[in-house]
Amino acid sequence: MGKYDALAALLLEAIKEGGDLKQDDNSIPVGISNRHIHLSQTDLNTLFGAGYQLAKTKDLSQPLQYACKETLTIAGPKGAIEKVRILGPARSETQVEILQADCFKLGKTAPVRLSGDLQGTPGITLIGPQGSILLAKGLMIAQRHIHMTTDQANHLGVADGELVSIQIDGLRGGTYSNVIIRANNTSALECHIDTEEANAMSLASTSRITIIKKI
Amino acid sequence: MGKYDALAALLLEAIKEGGDLKQDDNSIPVGISNRHIHLSQTDLNTLFGAGYQLAKTKDLSQPLQYACKETLTIAGPKGAIEKVRILGPARSETQVEILQADCFKLGKTAPVRLSGDLQGTPGITLIGPQGSILLAKGLMIAQRHIHMTTDQANHLGVADGELVSIQIDGLRGGTYSNVIIRANNTSALECHIDTEEANAMSLASTSRITIIKKI
Repeated sequence: MGKYDALAALLLEAIKEGGDLKQDDNSIPVGISNRHIHLSQTDLNTLFGAGYQLAKTKDLSQPLQYACKETLTIAGPKGAIEKVRILGPARSETQVEILQADCFKLGKTAPVRLSGDLQGTPGITLIGPQGSILLAKGLMIAQRHIHMTTDQANHLGVADGELVSIQIDGLRGGTYSNVIIRANNTSALECHIDTEEANAMSLASTSRITIIKKI
Repeated sequence: MGKYDALAALLLEAIKEGGDLKQDDNSIPVGISNRHIHLSQTDLNTLFGAGYQLAKTKDLSQPLQYACKETLTIAGPKGAIEKVRILGPARSETQVEILQADCFKLGKTAPVRLSGDLQGTPGITLIGPQGSILLAKGLMIAQRHIHMTTDQANHLGVADGELVSIQIDGLRGGTYSNVIIRANNTSALECHIDTEEANAMSLASTSRITIIKKI
C-alpha cells in the first residue's frame, strides 16, 4: 500500500470511529476538550530539545490528531497551571486553548476564537523540561464548532463556516448559539465543546446534540 | 427601632442592592455561585467546636445570607477539595453544593437539585479544624433558579415553582432551560447559576439575562 492509500485508509477508519449521523434524528456525537496545547516544531525544539518528537498516547476522533505523553506548565501573572496536555502532530503555529476558569487562575484574558485564528490573541508563558517560551500570541478559548464531511453538511443542510445553534436535552439542557460548522473531507463528525460547556449542560462523551438552524 | 423594623429595613436594603428589573427590557441580574457549604448548627459544633459562631465576611445579595471567613475541606474516594467556603447563617440541614467538575475530582456523583431538596442525595466527608463528619446526604449540583419577589413574578408573568428558560446574548450565548422561579417576599431579584454555567456562556457578575417562557 502506497503512502496515499495508507493515508486514505487511516482517514476512513478515523472518520468511521468518529461516529456517524444517526439516521433517525440527525443527532451528532460530542467531543469534550480540556485545556490543551498545539506546538510548532520550533517551539517543540525549544521546550523539549532539538529535533524532539512527540510521543502519541491516544488517537483523537479527528483524523491524524492525537494526544501526547508530553505536558507543559502554562504561567500567567496570577498563577500557573501544570500538566497541560500537548496534542499532536506539530502545527505551523503554537496555540494554547484554555478554559474561562483558567483565565482567572492565570490572570489573563483570552478571546473566544476559532482554532488557527491567532491574530491579535494574547501570549502566555510555556514552561517545558528543556526550556521556556514567552509566546507573543496564541492564547484563546476555543469557539464551539462541529466537524463534518461535506456530504454530512449537505445532508444536514448546513455549509462550511455557517453559524448554527445546538440543542441539548435533559434537566440541565438548553441551547448553545454561534457554533461554527467546519466541513471538509478530512473531518470526522463531532461537535467540539470544552469541559465547562459540557459540565454546564451535563454533557458526557457519550452525549449527542442536534443542530438548530439560525432563524 | 424594634427587632421587626430592623429586619424589615435590612430586607428592603438587601432587596434593593440585589438589583431591580430593568424597565425597558425586563432583564435580570446574574449571581454566580462557586462550590459552597451550608451547615446545620449541630455539624458546625462538630467541625469547629461546641457553640461556634460563623464569622461573616460579606453580605450576599439574598437578604440575611452571607459568606463566612470559615472554609472546610470536602473529600471523596478519588480526591479532596480544600477551602470550600461556608455560607451563613446555619440552616436546619447541612448541604454541600458542588460543580460538575468537582464530581470528577472527588469521585462522587451528585444529582442536580433545588436547594433544600436533600432526599436521596449522596453524602460526602467534611473536614474541619475540630472534627470531621461523614455526611449521609446533602451533596448536590444546584439547579439554576431565579429569586424574585411575588410582585416581580407578577410583572414578569411567572409563578413560584415555574420552569422557564433564560436567554444569554453574545458570541458565547444561548439558552439554559429548566430554570426554576423562586418567588417570595424575602428574595432579591437575581438569577443564580454556578461558575461552570457562567463560564460556558461568558457570563460575569455584571451580566443580565432575560426570561423566555416555556412554549
